[in-house]
Amino acid sequence: MSDLKTAALEYHAQPRPGKLSVELTKPTQTARDLSLAYSPGVAEPVREIARDPELAYRYTGKSNLVAVISDGTAILGLGNLGPLASKPVMEGKGVLFKRFAGVDVFDIEVDAESPQAFIDTVKRISVTFGGINLEDIKAPECFEIERALIEQCNIPVFHDDQHGTAIVTAAGMLNALEIAGKSLPTARIACLGAGAAAISCMRLLVSLGARVENIHMIDRQGVIHAGRDDLNQYKAVFAHETDKRTLADALDGADVFVGLSGANLLSAENLLRMAPNPIVFACSNPDPEISPELAHATRGDVIMATGRSDYPNQVNNVLGFPFIFRGALDVRATRINEEMKIAAAHALRELAKLPVPKAVCEAYGVSGLEFGREYIIPKPMDPRLITVVSDAVARAAIESGVASLPYPRHYPLQSVEEVFNS
Amino acid sequence: MSDLKTAALEYHAQPRPGKLSVELTKPTQTARDLSLAYSPGVAEPVREIARDPELAYRYTGKSNLVAVISDGTAILGLGNLGPLASKPVMEGKGVLFKRFAGVDVFDIEVDAESPQAFIDTVKRISVTFGGINLEDIKAPECFEIERALIEQCNIPVFHDDQHGTAIVTAAGMLNALEIAGKSLPTARIACLGAGAAAISCMRLLVSLGARVENIHMIDRQGVIHAGRDDLNQYKAVFAHETDKRTLADALDGADVFVGLSGANLLSAENLLRMAPNPIVFACSNPDPEISPELAHATRGDVIMATGRSDYPNQVNNVLGFPFIFRGALDVRATRINEEMKIAAAHALRELAKLPVPKAVCEAYGVSGLEFGREYIIPKPMDPRLITVVSDAVARAAIESGVASLPYPRHYPLQSVEEVFNS
Repeated sequence: MSDLKTAALEYHAQPRPGKLSVELTKPTQTARDLSLAYSPGVAEPVREIARDPELAYRYTGKSNLVAVISDGTAILGLGNLGPLASKPVMEGKGVLFKRFAGVDVFDIEVDAESPQAFIDTVKRISVTFGGINLEDIKAPECFEIERALIEQCNIPVFHDDQHGTAIVTAAGMLNALEIAGKSLPTARIACLGAGAAAISCMRLLVSLGARVENIHMIDRQGVIHAGRDDLNQYKAVFAHETDKRTLADALDGADVFVGLSGANLLSAENLLRMAPNPIVFACSNPDPEISPELAHATRGDVIMATGRSDYPNQVNNVLGFPFIFRGALDVRATRINEEMKIAAAHALRELAKLPVPKAVCEAYGVSGLEFGREYIIPKPMDPRLITVVSDAVARAAIESGVASLPYPRHYPLQSVEEVFNS
Repeated sequence: MSDLKTAALEYHAQPRPGKLSVELTKPTQTARDLSLAYSPGVAEPVREIARDPELAYRYTGKSNLVAVISDGTAILGLGNLGPLASKPVMEGKGVLFKRFAGVDVFDIEVDAESPQAFIDTVKRISVTFGGINLEDIKAPECFEIERALIEQCNIPVFHDDQHGTAIVTAAGMLNALEIAGKSLPTARIACLGAGAAAISCMRLLVSLGARVENIHMIDRQGVIHAGRDDLNQYKAVFAHETDKRTLADALDGADVFVGLSGANLLSAENLLRMAPNPIVFACSNPDPEISPELAHATRGDVIMATGRSDYPNQVNNVLGFPFIFRGALDVRATRINEEMKIAAAHALRELAKLPVPKAVCEAYGVSGLEFGREYIIPKPMDPRLITVVSDAVARAAIESGVASLPYPRHYPLQSVEEVFNS
């Protein structure tokens, strides 16, 4: 076995199975304690919540509890391996939610015979939670599932593979464009891959100013264009009149390549077709569409991001979802809307422009990090993320009218100083 | 507000809402840690589980995770207040599972439009868990719901309001009968109440030797007998030819009264109708069918149990469910069968006959506890419960062929000594 495989299996199995436990937050030593936690005292919050459902947020864990839910139809890049096999990933997501933003997570794996059965199931259990993070559900079903659940649940529902990826990609992209002296409204964009993440990324870039006619998406059949009759409604949005048919065509003179596809699908030859100062987001994991080594050896003017932690400019969803839910929960937003997503992207973008604390550089074993080609997006271990991104999301929720609580939040976030000293 | 109400609401609200949190059990400080907990390392347990589903028990929290699930249709004695209002109770159950047996619990509240919708929902999410504890679901729907889920899930499903109550009641009853010089096969039993708990209690007493023709159940229409045409199939099991029609009739010469009904429904006059050395289990909560003060003042030969912690002989479900699931999980039982329930009842019964550790007496502020009229059942704070009851359940699972693991358990229980010293 590889070192990583051995270490990962050992990590999950020892000293006890899994990565999470449920712990008590209140005293339970005496009979009196237990009479408050359970019968007869527990009848009091029950009666209060029956009288006013909002009080569930005061007397139960709902206010800080997110469900991470999957049907296991698209696990990582591994495909449809079923709900049980998705459990380590959902628990891992719970680890990241807790580690980075203090959010409690129940991972829920759903064995659903159809998208409608999945929707019904999640809707019925949604009363348990303060928010729902959908995960690793295959396209195009994920679009309809998310739409239906947003409509039917009165708590935020967020498909991270779509929006989390889009938000973090957009943040890095805006900075890359700035450094390259380009702008979204004029950027010619080639997107290799047309799954959930790719479609959501392109949608958000359009929200931020990119023009559909400048975007070429490429799926297994080639460039998506107006003459194709094999497109689902989600791909069809990006179909327009064009004579480009191949990835090579799409890359001719392109400013931006976004890869959400597979390893090594961008050749050096195709990279050379791109415009000066090309921006390459090769996000396939673990192996990007082109290795940074090959990209930089091929041309010196490339600005490069990947999904990997061992290269500069890691596009990593963990920069988004913990803080987006933290902000949404803290003002009890009823949904995570476009304004909140855009606020998160801008907050991430702006944070990358601030001087980087020494502790962050040390965590990554580098002597310094400074806004530029090798640092277009914050690092996951940056302790300012929770304050900066969550704040931006919470404020956007308030300003866009989906927040149920005003500032200050119902229980305090750590301040920046506390985060640094912790 | 009463002191209890104030204290209970404060307990649930401060310093943060609820009683449980989800915590990390593995290191997450470094980027390396996170690469094992999540991408790319997490792909390894995913692949392993896809290859062999049993490995979910090795690499995820499933092996120690129980869902406490309700639809909120019968919350405590408060009635149908809906799923959201049941959340403090389900979280409270989680507190008890963790506190007494180290079991991790996700509370799941289900907003189901029908029993079938509830069944479908629980079945679809059952892959997440190692066991399912159903709670506060009204009768008679709870019987069909439990039956269907036992049939459809490959993990233990247990409706605690039925079986937990029955097991603990049976344990105390066997000891009370012994002390009274009576026995189950000849005992004349009046059971006031014919809900889920009452029916399950009588079923288990029959399993243990009681005779249906000696049992009179009383519902709101009076004694359940063969001439009634208004009985559901669960009550009908207890209908037989009798000329008794009222509680008073049923109590004439009865050896045992079991109350699972409401406050003060057993009068002194009716108590006087019972046979010598009458056994009175007045389990209505918080106010029993007859107060111990009134019962003892009425006749000196009564052996009395209640659901209350402030009187001797508390019949409390917490004596059962944490340890029953602990035993079932530790040998990975596929179900909780009759043999396991009976083993739990006998283990509880036998534990009450052993000398009581001083620490237990001190926890209850009494100078000594000794098997007899005032001590027929162990105290919830007795640290020997986890070893004695869980062991008995695990052994019964193995002997009855529903265990998937042999002794020793896959991870160690605390020993009796460790429990005492903790």
